[in-house]
Amino acid sequence: MAKKALAIDVGGTKIYSAIVNEKGEIISEVEKYLTPKTFNEIKAVFKEIIEKYEDLVDVIAFSTCGAVNNQNNGILGSTGNIAKEYPAMDFKSLSKKTVFVENDANAAAWAEHVIGASKEMPYSIMLTLGTGVGGGIILDNKLYKGKNGAAGEMHFKMRTDKHRKCTCGSYDCFEAYASGTGLKRTAEEISGDSEITTYDVVANKDRPLMKKILEKWQNDILEGIIGLANIFDPDCVVLSGSMAEFVDIDYLEKEANKEIVTTPFRIVKASAGNYSGMIGAALLALGVK
Amino acid sequence: MAKKALAIDVGGTKIYSAIVNEKGEIISEVEKYLTPKTFNEIKAVFKEIIEKYEDLVDVIAFSTCGAVNNQNNGILGSTGNIAKEYPAMDFKSLSKKTVFVENDANAAAWAEHVIGASKEMPYSIMLTLGTGVGGGIILDNKLYKGKNGAAGEMHFKMRTDKHRKCTCGSYDCFEAYASGTGLKRTAEEISGDSEITTYDVVANKDRPLMKKILEKWQNDILEGIIGLANIFDPDCVVLSGSMAEFVDIDYLEKEANKEIVTTPFRIVKASAGNYSGMIGAALLALGVK
Repeated sequence: MAKKALAIDVGGTKIYSAIVNEKGEIISEVEKYLTPKTFNEIKAVFKEIIEKYEDLVDVIAFSTCGAVNNQNNGILGSTGNIAKEYPAMDFKSLSKKTVFVENDANAAAWAEHVIGASKEMPYSIMLTLGTGVGGGIILDNKLYKGKNGAAGEMHFKMRTDKHRKCTCGSYDCFEAYASGTGLKRTAEEISGDSEITTYDVVANKDRPLMKKILEKWQNDILEGIIGLANIFDPDCVVLSGSMAEFVDIDYLEKEANKEIVTTPFRIVKASAGNYSGMIGAALLALGVK
Repeated sequence: MAKKALAIDVGGTKIYSAIVNEKGEIISEVEKYLTPKTFNEIKAVFKEIIEKYEDLVDVIAFSTCGAVNNQNNGILGSTGNIAKEYPAMDFKSLSKKTVFVENDANAAAWAEHVIGASKEMPYSIMLTLGTGVGGGIILDNKLYKGKNGAAGEMHFKMRTDKHRKCTCGSYDCFEAYASGTGLKRTAEEISGDSEITTYDVVANKDRPLMKKILEKWQNDILEGIIGLANIFDPDCVVLSGSMAEFVDIDYLEKEANKEIVTTPFRIVKASAGNYSGMIGAALLALGVK
């Protein structure tokens, strides 16, 4: 019988769960919880979900914020806006079934690789443009994790004069420019209005000022992608996340290919859907390539 | 009997040759030629070297400027200051023995990995700081080449306002800041003197102005390394090339580790010597890991 995973996606604000099969299909209702503030409450939500469904599945697959180790059983370090003790979570102890853990951006990149936009492309880089920027790197049909599992952090510099503080504590990372938060800051800088929101920009994108702001933001994304393409010589860069709908993919692909010194590559929009983190974690946990 | 390679290093200005054994030792005199201007003259030099030595070795190993394909038998594209027809070279036809070709920076990174500074470190990134910047990436004990072989080009952006033209035709790449040429341009910008040379800077490095220039140049190298460490989570970054002697490795390692979001890594000076390109190509051609 085909195997199934109980997938649990853990973000700073919400936790989702669903049962996913080997085809990467969600075969249950998706359940949603608000992420509690404390470690013990988060653990209680995990236990509640797992106790409810573990007998129906072969494996538990977490897609989580934070860098995940190469043993796929724990969090390596700080994870932003979730309880600060979260990295101490002993995932294995949560279920009698096998528990598999992967970073959410890595899991989403794997979903795109197996069933989505980068299918049949051995080398792909996924950029999730949301409030921040997530990164997932697939090389030679394998998820690339680096020596300890923390690889794929899109914190490379866009300038070197300490202009914008990044969420990581350093300055001027790609994330601080290419994210939704980055768009707001670009908008503030160009408009001089500290109250301007990303919504103001995207809702009025035909107005000259907003157009100028979006073009600057998109150009920063382009510059980042050029660097990644020169480093990796990938088949494609996949763009996902809520902010990806505001970029002109065809323009980016055309312009990037003019600038690179490596070989031509594609830029594509993610197609595995909103739950690609859960799907990718499930596929990884089930060993589906 | 232990196998040997005839290694040939091809640069824009010089061609070197030597016989290298499986330990990565050079066991002959190193011969040096000036790189001729035309394709046919370059080919004639290759033939002269190969005819002289091919009977003494098991394989011919080229370490060359230019990106080399994943079949290790040809050049992918443009290679800067060598005859423009050079990418059309049919390396295989040059000898009755097996001919193996690899990019010089990749080959040098492999030499460091097998016998040099990144020995026993599965994940390393080598930056060769010379007139330009070469890059070689070792991931999971394998040379990383990307989908077509062109990976490892250190042309990611240091700023996004088209400030400095890069040799690649684009603007503001790491190479345009971290190289010797980059140091000259940083010196010009800070001193306002267009005649200033890299020699002026390094020969007078205790003078306040020169110190300031070197610090800015070194800081740009630092910023680039931080980005690479966040992307790759490597064991180490190896610095090689003539300009590497002007950076403070311990300072870079300390500062970079403060800024990264991935896990601690080393920054080390290359130790495989001036002929690491030949040695690495020979080791790759001989299958030595």
